[in-house]
Amino acid sequence: MKKVLVTGGAGFIGSHVVDKLVSLGKEVVVYDNLSTGHSDYLANSADKIKFVKADILDKSALAKSMEEVDFVFHMAAHADVKNNLNEPEKLLQQNTVGTSNVLEAMRMNDVKGIAFPSTGSVYGEPDIHPTPADAPFPVQTSMYGASKLAGEGLLQAYAAGYGVQVFIFRFVSTMGERYSHGCVFDFFKKLKENPVQLEILGDGRQKKSYLYVKDIVDAMFTAIEKSNNSINIFNLGHDDYVEVTPIAEIVCSELGLSSVKFIYTGGSRGWVGDSPFIHLDNSAIKSLGWQPSLSIPEAIKKTVGWLKENGWVIKGR
Amino acid sequence: MKKVLVTGGAGFIGSHVVDKLVSLGKEVVVYDNLSTGHSDYLANSADKIKFVKADILDKSALAKSMEEVDFVFHMAAHADVKNNLNEPEKLLQQNTVGTSNVLEAMRMNDVKGIAFPSTGSVYGEPDIHPTPADAPFPVQTSMYGASKLAGEGLLQAYAAGYGVQVFIFRFVSTMGERYSHGCVFDFFKKLKENPVQLEILGDGRQKKSYLYVKDIVDAMFTAIEKSNNSINIFNLGHDDYVEVTPIAEIVCSELGLSSVKFIYTGGSRGWVGDSPFIHLDNSAIKSLGWQPSLSIPEAIKKTVGWLKENGWVIKGR
Repeated sequence: MKKVLVTGGAGFIGSHVVDKLVSLGKEVVVYDNLSTGHSDYLANSADKIKFVKADILDKSALAKSMEEVDFVFHMAAHADVKNNLNEPEKLLQQNTVGTSNVLEAMRMNDVKGIAFPSTGSVYGEPDIHPTPADAPFPVQTSMYGASKLAGEGLLQAYAAGYGVQVFIFRFVSTMGERYSHGCVFDFFKKLKENPVQLEILGDGRQKKSYLYVKDIVDAMFTAIEKSNNSINIFNLGHDDYVEVTPIAEIVCSELGLSSVKFIYTGGSRGWVGDSPFIHLDNSAIKSLGWQPSLSIPEAIKKTVGWLKENGWVIKGR
Repeated sequence: MKKVLVTGGAGFIGSHVVDKLVSLGKEVVVYDNLSTGHSDYLANSADKIKFVKADILDKSALAKSMEEVDFVFHMAAHADVKNNLNEPEKLLQQNTVGTSNVLEAMRMNDVKGIAFPSTGSVYGEPDIHPTPADAPFPVQTSMYGASKLAGEGLLQAYAAGYGVQVFIFRFVSTMGERYSHGCVFDFFKKLKENPVQLEILGDGRQKKSYLYVKDIVDAMFTAIEKSNNSINIFNLGHDDYVEVTPIAEIVCSELGLSSVKFIYTGGSRGWVGDSPFIHLDNSAIKSLGWQPSLSIPEAIKKTVGWLKENGWVIKGR
């Protein structure tokens, strides 16, 4: 890995990948349309990267950006899981067709390695917890999961057909610096607007595993360094999981709010496609020596701390 | 099911679906771009159907064709499995984006049921034979399998998100009248050109299950009639499987050719993505009372008989 392209490199997780690559002395091309990313997120690395403002649906820009690149982190994605039913075609275009475009640009430029963030949502609502990578053939419950599953399949077919080495990472939800969507974000935003009452989607009993963003990035680099199959599939999640209500309690506490009244919308799912229980078997990545540095409560606290210092993300820019 | 749209209705399997629907007295709209389909295949039904010559990538034509339709057989697909590496984007567009277009047109027209032919290739190279529908989470080995897996995921997400009832059928290879690609076709064509020598891809030991086209159509209708879940997934395959060399022997015998010399290209796979062993667990569809009417050798003989009477398909039209 010498010259690396990071799609979505100005986004939440992508920008941490960029920081890591720069710290390792790699030549980095950041490819981002800045639709949800922020150039501020590249402040640490700005003078050490090449930035291309373009969309992954722009095939010629993609192909051009991949000259001399030897590895791709394809972090660009439509990640608005909760509103996935509003724009099903947009999810397909951005997460599936976009991934095909990246793979085709790689093929044209003879780029032979790619890391791809998939999602624990591809397991649908599994019967086995923690869920292993070879769980029974899943049934999709969300457009988001379906769009990422399709991306996984494409990577695997490119590995078989064109000799591309692929790293597929099934992520749990991620938190930390530069985080701008998900339940901690939603709770923070709602409490800023109304500090006495908080609406919680579902019954608050949904069980979810989370990872701190720097832990997830470390896990990806660990796998890429130490796993050398043609197709490498890793669950990236914490040993633990938490329910939604205790997350809300931590957010309240970090904001110094007591006696906030929780109002539940009810039901075991917060939205269509919300899995009531996401807890992934992370033994494969742990067997390579990786461990999360933060517990889930610590990750939540760090996230709230960052949101407090970066109130602008609530409004966007 | 009153008014039914059949995409790919002028194709090999699609036209048999149309014949069946007409025999049941349904109102039928055939939607086909005639890229691989033939209007001749609709000769039996021509005066009883509405034919729309259009592509599934034409979203407005699709939406318009679905007025008052209450069920869709989405049979249109890019089915050239063997050459799947030549045009990866075409497979994605025709099998995945096309399926998304069909689902969106259904959503716009409030069509609440769809049957979708997927493929046993979505299992990749499974360890379990016969392979059950809940086999371990597969790894894709072909662009074709990946494109159909993506279609499955979309159907499942539409079932969860929009209340569409979906029937997903994982097909083995299909043979019979109107068959125009696959190994029996290839052997027939090659033997017409050279009746003393036959090239066989791979080592001829690949094990494959097959179904006669009218059996596969009967299986689909059995499932749609008797299974009433939101998401219905069935393997459609024969109890038996055969190796490739005995298939070649039957084709030779049906053509009255003896002492044809078989030349093997070698290796356990005929092409990238060719699974050395496809044999699906068909217990779910059999539990609904379905049985194949023809053995695999009988299906091969019927297919060769049809090819002998319809030599034009060798050249196309």
